[in-house]
Amino acid sequence: MAKEKKLVEAITSMDVDFAQWYTDVVKKAELVDYTSVKGCMVIKPAGYAIWENIQHELDRRFKETGVENVYLPMFIPESLLQKEKDHVEGFAPEVAWVTHGGLEPLQERLCVRPTSETLFCDFYANEVQSYRDLPKVYNQWCSVVRWEKTTRPFLRSREFLWQEGHTAHATAEEAEERTIQMLHVYAKFCEEVLAIPVIKGQKTDKEKFAGAEATYTIESLMHDGKALQSGTSHNFGDGFAKAFGIQFTDKDNTLKYVHQTSWGMTTRMIGAIIMVHGDDSGLVLPPRIAPTQVMVIPIAQHKSGVLEKAQEIREKLSGAFRVKLDDSDKSPGWKFSEQEMKGIPVRIELGPKDIEANQAVLVRRDTREKLTVSLDELEEKLGQVLTAMQTEMLERARAHRDAHTYDAQNYEEFVDIVNNKPGFVRGMWCGDQACEDKIKEETSATSRCMPFQQERIAETCVCCGRPAKSLVYWGKAY
Amino acid sequence: MAKEKKLVEAITSMDVDFAQWYTDVVKKAELVDYTSVKGCMVIKPAGYAIWENIQHELDRRFKETGVENVYLPMFIPESLLQKEKDHVEGFAPEVAWVTHGGLEPLQERLCVRPTSETLFCDFYANEVQSYRDLPKVYNQWCSVVRWEKTTRPFLRSREFLWQEGHTAHATAEEAEERTIQMLHVYAKFCEEVLAIPVIKGQKTDKEKFAGAEATYTIESLMHDGKALQSGTSHNFGDGFAKAFGIQFTDKDNTLKYVHQTSWGMTTRMIGAIIMVHGDDSGLVLPPRIAPTQVMVIPIAQHKSGVLEKAQEIREKLSGAFRVKLDDSDKSPGWKFSEQEMKGIPVRIELGPKDIEANQAVLVRRDTREKLTVSLDELEEKLGQVLTAMQTEMLERARAHRDAHTYDAQNYEEFVDIVNNKPGFVRGMWCGDQACEDKIKEETSATSRCMPFQQERIAETCVCCGRPAKSLVYWGKAY
Repeated sequence: MAKEKKLVEAITSMDVDFAQWYTDVVKKAELVDYTSVKGCMVIKPAGYAIWENIQHELDRRFKETGVENVYLPMFIPESLLQKEKDHVEGFAPEVAWVTHGGLEPLQERLCVRPTSETLFCDFYANEVQSYRDLPKVYNQWCSVVRWEKTTRPFLRSREFLWQEGHTAHATAEEAEERTIQMLHVYAKFCEEVLAIPVIKGQKTDKEKFAGAEATYTIESLMHDGKALQSGTSHNFGDGFAKAFGIQFTDKDNTLKYVHQTSWGMTTRMIGAIIMVHGDDSGLVLPPRIAPTQVMVIPIAQHKSGVLEKAQEIREKLSGAFRVKLDDSDKSPGWKFSEQEMKGIPVRIELGPKDIEANQAVLVRRDTREKLTVSLDELEEKLGQVLTAMQTEMLERARAHRDAHTYDAQNYEEFVDIVNNKPGFVRGMWCGDQACEDKIKEETSATSRCMPFQQERIAETCVCCGRPAKSLVYWGKAY
Repeated sequence: MAKEKKLVEAITSMDVDFAQWYTDVVKKAELVDYTSVKGCMVIKPAGYAIWENIQHELDRRFKETGVENVYLPMFIPESLLQKEKDHVEGFAPEVAWVTHGGLEPLQERLCVRPTSETLFCDFYANEVQSYRDLPKVYNQWCSVVRWEKTTRPFLRSREFLWQEGHTAHATAEEAEERTIQMLHVYAKFCEEVLAIPVIKGQKTDKEKFAGAEATYTIESLMHDGKALQSGTSHNFGDGFAKAFGIQFTDKDNTLKYVHQTSWGMTTRMIGAIIMVHGDDSGLVLPPRIAPTQVMVIPIAQHKSGVLEKAQEIREKLSGAFRVKLDDSDKSPGWKFSEQEMKGIPVRIELGPKDIEANQAVLVRRDTREKLTVSLDELEEKLGQVLTAMQTEMLERARAHRDAHTYDAQNYEEFVDIVNNKPGFVRGMWCGDQACEDKIKEETSATSRCMPFQQERIAETCVCCGRPAKSLVYWGKAY
């Protein structure tokens, strides 16, 4: 029992220190490791396998909407980055610069892509001549670099993995439609696969992407009541097209600028999974994203027939589930702790007495609910348990978020909530950036989004008291 | 007909100018485009889809051997790169250096990974303490950068995509076993999936990887008789482990160094597919790697019922094949030329008379063989045609390679063959690097490998006439 204790004691309780709990979980669940490269991480097999599942599932959904994958260079010449004024202002302060190739200084320095709008524009300027060449609906899976000062695994690191979609369209309407379509793809993916409920909305001008006309976002709430921007979709209008000269001859034989969008989701979603679903025993993975869904753990495996039966069960289940068998020489208790730490959704306990009674014990990771099941019904019951777990994890996360979403009528209430009740604060806004600036400075909360589902919970701005224009979700954010 | 002509005329004949033919094909088959970033390319949807299939198939084969995927940073601190003497000498002259992060100069400059041995060593030095932590059998899919002076799409570019496997083992035997195992994985993949026959062998010391004890390679022969190194697998012994201090406590309670391997395959294989299988009409893709295996092309599609029937066929076949329908407003002849240019293995021609006769015409891309098939048997016959095409493409490539492999007994013969008969030259070698140097200087042929299947085709070195040690494949290479 000493050993089991040690593994669990290795992580700080989330109520004591959420940040430390997070750091402990990413390390003890073997998701990442630190490296000699400051601000960059190693994504270890258990972490990368989650990313592979995210990629697989998102990529499939992208392709269903007509997305094609491409790969563009990781370097951007400085002159190219500077072509769109707002964009370069937003990114230049945080890019890494390559100044030497081999033993020689470069004639023009290159930045390592922080995002690839400029490269896609350069590409589209060559590719697009006629309306027949449109739309372009391209995406790439790659890593990007932003020279952050403070970093945290998955949430903010100098290099991270993501996908970035970049599209070009003949009309403004089509671009807007694609922008919204991809936001819905992200939202459905988060809810259906990651069991993370999201608020869909639009960013204020202050918070929108550098160079965008409009940025749409999905915002989720972590267990500690902080918000996480979980995916964004930008409509660029024809701003980039004008800066880069991306023109096409339309059906009416006139020359027009294309309308563009971009949209991205990153490895930070692994951080979201941890912070939405995890508990004091470690990670809890939604079944649909879990690299291993089921761990078979034999009890008294030295006894005759136990390992053989466990192997047989693993074999039988592996057609329908992602299942592993822990036949290491560790104690069962230690194996339970490891399976819990790694967030594997269900374990199957199987000992000599179970085998004698033709049964096994299923234990759900999230609720720890135990279910004794006949071996004849194992596959069926396991499917039910995993489905129920996926559904209930989403419901629980939604209930937690709703219980931590507060309405503020005026500034006094607003400040009180931000200071004392971690979560989203809903408050009306006049539309003036001065109010956003004041709120950020005085409370460190930021506007997360103007939700698509607008309500008028008050007539006046929660900050200045002038007539309100929009409902805004505010919160402290990662 | 003017249009059809134009598309075919757009590419140079391979017999006239093979290099220009290659450049034309990569461009006209829409595989890549050039960019504003010198020496880097855009991989377009048709090219990237081939890479996705390569990834999918290789990754599956890796995982069957116990490989786990990870992701390490793209940057290597200069001090880390310098830890292994041979390695830094091999790579330092061709790396890109990051010297500034944001607005500030870095304390230590970082190179963009040209390969990640040093990062994996740094990682393993932290991760490996006990024999229980071994083996580590990790791989990553990523891009790497080498500051090449002359570049060609897929074959040699400043940034390219690849996978790099890096393993650590308790014993020298296990490391050697893994090195050879992965070479066999590559060889089987090339032959079974890409229909490219390979010679398996070992590199000479002159040609081995910087820092390796032994480098194994698969070498393939392009249509123009030049060789292409198609995949390599390196055994590092404990050289890196000593430089990086990667030690573990073994079962006998003594401290030992690990033994390491690495192995990689790159986007250059897309270049190999083009140069092994392509013809004067463009690309020819082996069915197993082709993103689209079948293109349905309706004839007289304006006539009633034609498009509907074509759609029905596409729908029906899409369960078993990767199939598309070209219902654009181009002429059938133009569509044929495009399908041929893009190397789609089979087209199905379907016109009103075919429909009336309940048949369609299958045309194989490689042989242009036409087969009139009853619609009732379409799926079955299509499967047979694709299988036959895959098999015959490999056989044809093997026959071409064998017909372009020559034995040289002495230096006169050797020089004559290299100068007049493009292909592999087999010649015995004394083992002295001076002979390799002389051959390279005087003929520009290099030693490709010492094949696993050794034969004694002569008793003396083809260069110096001293007693021979090994049979070597020589050739001009990409």
